Amino acid sequence: MQTLPADLSVQLPAIAADIVERLRRRAPRVHCVTNSVAQNFTANMLLAAGAVPSMTTAPEEIAAFVRGADALLVNLGTFDAERRAAVEAALAAVEGRPWVLDPVFVDRSPDRAAFARSLLAARPAVVRLNRAELGTLAAGADARAAAARWTTTVALSGATDVVTDGVASLSLGNGHALMARVTAMGCAGSALVAACLAVEPDPLTAAASALLLLGIAGEQAAGASRGPGTFAIAIIDALDALDGATIRQSAKVGA
Amino acid sequence: MQTLPADLSVQLPAIAADIVERLRRRAPRVHCVTNSVAQNFTANMLLAAGAVPSMTTAPEEIAAFVRGADALLVNLGTFDAERRAAVEAALAAVEGRPWVLDPVFVDRSPDRAAFARSLLAARPAVVRLNRAELGTLAAGADARAAAARWTTTVALSGATDVVTDGVASLSLGNGHALMARVTAMGCAGSALVAACLAVEPDPLTAAASALLLLGIAGEQAAGASRGPGTFAIAIIDALDALDGATIRQSAKVGA
Amino acid sequence: MQTLPADLSVQLPAIAADIVERLRRRAPRVHCVTNSVAQNFTANMLLAAGAVPSMTTAPEEIAAFVRGADALLVNLGTFDAERRAAVEAALAAVEGRPWVLDPVFVDRSPDRAAFARSLLAARPAVVRLNRAELGTLAAGADARAAAARWTTTVALSGATDVVTDGVASLSLGNGHALMARVTAMGCAGSALVAACLAVEPDPLTAAASALLLLGIAGEQAAGASRGPGTFAIAIIDALDALDGATIRQSAKVGA
Repeated sequence: MQTLPADLSVQLPAIAADIVERLRRRAPRVHCVTNSVAQNFTANMLLAAGAVPSMTTAPEEIAAFVRGADALLVNLGTFDAERRAAVEAALAAVEGRPWVLDPVFVDRSPDRAAFARSLLAARPAVVRLNRAELGTLAAGADARAAAARWTTTVALSGATDVVTDGVASLSLGNGHALMARVTAMGCAGSALVAACLAVEPDPLTAAASALLLLGIAGEQAAGASRGPGTFAIAIIDALDALDGATIRQSAKVGA
Repeated sequence: MQTLPADLSVQLPAIAADIVERLRRRAPRVHCVTNSVAQNFTANMLLAAGAVPSMTTAPEEIAAFVRGADALLVNLGTFDAERRAAVEAALAAVEGRPWVLDPVFVDRSPDRAAFARSLLAARPAVVRLNRAELGTLAAGADARAAAARWTTTVALSGATDVVTDGVASLSLGNGHALMARVTAMGCAGSALVAACLAVEPDPLTAAASALLLLGIAGEQAAGASRGPGTFAIAIIDALDALDGATIRQSAKVGA
Repeated sequence: MQTLPADLSVQLPAIAADIVERLRRRAPRVHCVTNSVAQNFTANMLLAAGAVPSMTTAPEEIAAFVRGADALLVNLGTFDAERRAAVEAALAAVEGRPWVLDPVFVDRSPDRAAFARSLLAARPAVVRLNRAELGTLAAGADARAAAARWTTTVALSGATDVVTDGVASLSLGNGHALMARVTAMGCAGSALVAACLAVEPDPLTAAASALLLLGIAGEQAAGASRGPGTFAIAIIDALDALDGATIRQSAKVGA
């Protein structure tokens, strides 16, 4: 496991600003196996960040899409026989590409939790989840212990986000309460983690940058919104407009 | 069948305002088996109303989701072998929970109409539909006669909505022409009926309150819109912002 | 193959303005077999144009929907066993109705490209695609040669759109860079082609009108947008508000 600079929390805003530039310059392809509720919003958020989304979940062709992609998202928001086959085909094709696991609602379905556990064994670069989902999968362990046990980076969303690779940890204080009032915001966050992994090899840095960008975009969007409807649109605009100066001025990063 | 207060049409605005408070306080879980066109908009409308949506249609796990929910929506907007199995698994798990049937487009597909008829026998608390769909399922009977025959509450959408349990009836005059210009508005209305049923046991009151809230939100949204695109966003904001004073001042309820 | 008036490029704005009126007056039904990412946006764009969308992809019932429709869209944005069966059932029912093929991402998946080639043999009225997709299907031929070989009309999207039936060609210069920053814009464009085919029998005229209307709506929307999020909403409003004077003043049509 890499040892990270002690001052990553200080450097993160500048790194995240650079990652934004890399996304816009390289336009990485991100293939998403995600639920149908989240697909449209996720695609538009990826496009706003500079990435190029693809979304097929057909087991017949997903390997070709994954082999043409720079990163993969596996979101369990729908978990049926076909999507399970698609995930397995996608992971068989993923080879060295980074991939993100978003174990949506594993707290609601024991079968889904069991499938998520089997996916943890396939070594995602990052697992992004919320507190209820972590509680189900990690059986009481905190994010750091879970990351160490699963040999991955855990990005735990909440009022304050925590990102940890089991050794180093970062806390991220940006965001807005309206983010919890829009469906698929967490799913889109996981897709942004995948996009950042396509241009930044260190999972902790990539995951923390993605959540930092999302949180700051949320704050910018809140000022342009009249409620959760306009907010879900304004955050796409805000992500598209995000610049380095805003990131550096707004970032609330702790160790 | 319950006998309703003769003056429900007078009391409904105050009751609906109280239901809004109950939704925000209790945050009921509403599981939706709905079509992929409607999923994102429906989820955001439920969140705006204070409810917590889930949307999986995977037959393998839907029973777990239904058992964790407070109400269920069965929307036939897509009707394939998997979704049919999902509906059957959902209803097998629904037990005492209230559920809503939205027989979308049964007027276009005889097979779908036959499936909808079999679901009527499983006793939804409320059936929400439009005139063409009622015509197909009720073979000429009006909403009141259909409700009596099916032993349910019928919520018939139109320029004026009619809600009836076969004995008492209410007419609801709120709404805006733009509501018919946005896809999935009816589907979202049915989901709101399910949300209201989660916090209000009387089906007539719950269904009428849901359609009243939707109609008033539509009127509020129209003033903040430049067309059907902005309207579909503004109605989410309006539902989120709806307060008791607005409901009481705006409600157009008749017997 | 019809011979088209030499001055179609001059007449197109007036014809497109008339097609807008026909859409609003006749409200044609357009059945869409399209991917779940695009469904909601496509439905709202069709409604904004005056058409009535339906979207089921269930093989069991799609024939009934197609027989009740005035035009059909076949979009390959998801390509699984069920959707393939749905497409085959839809085409078996399409009879004399015009249909549009949108071979999304055939450049990413050889199986999808092979399926698209088999669909070309079933004679779509119009094939709408981008340069990468044309390159995959036409093996180096340009749009005009591809249209001649496939005996269809090709609508090639790009900074300048080209529409050709293999004999006559039109170039369309309207549009805005934000159109490429929103998911499903091309899919919605193909759906608009299907809508126009429902009210205009000449495929070249219908396809060119659809892309002209979309491009002008995009320009109108750009002025009302702060980024790709608000743009995707504003273009729905703009399509709804489009009038003949705006079309005639804004159109950039070349031979």
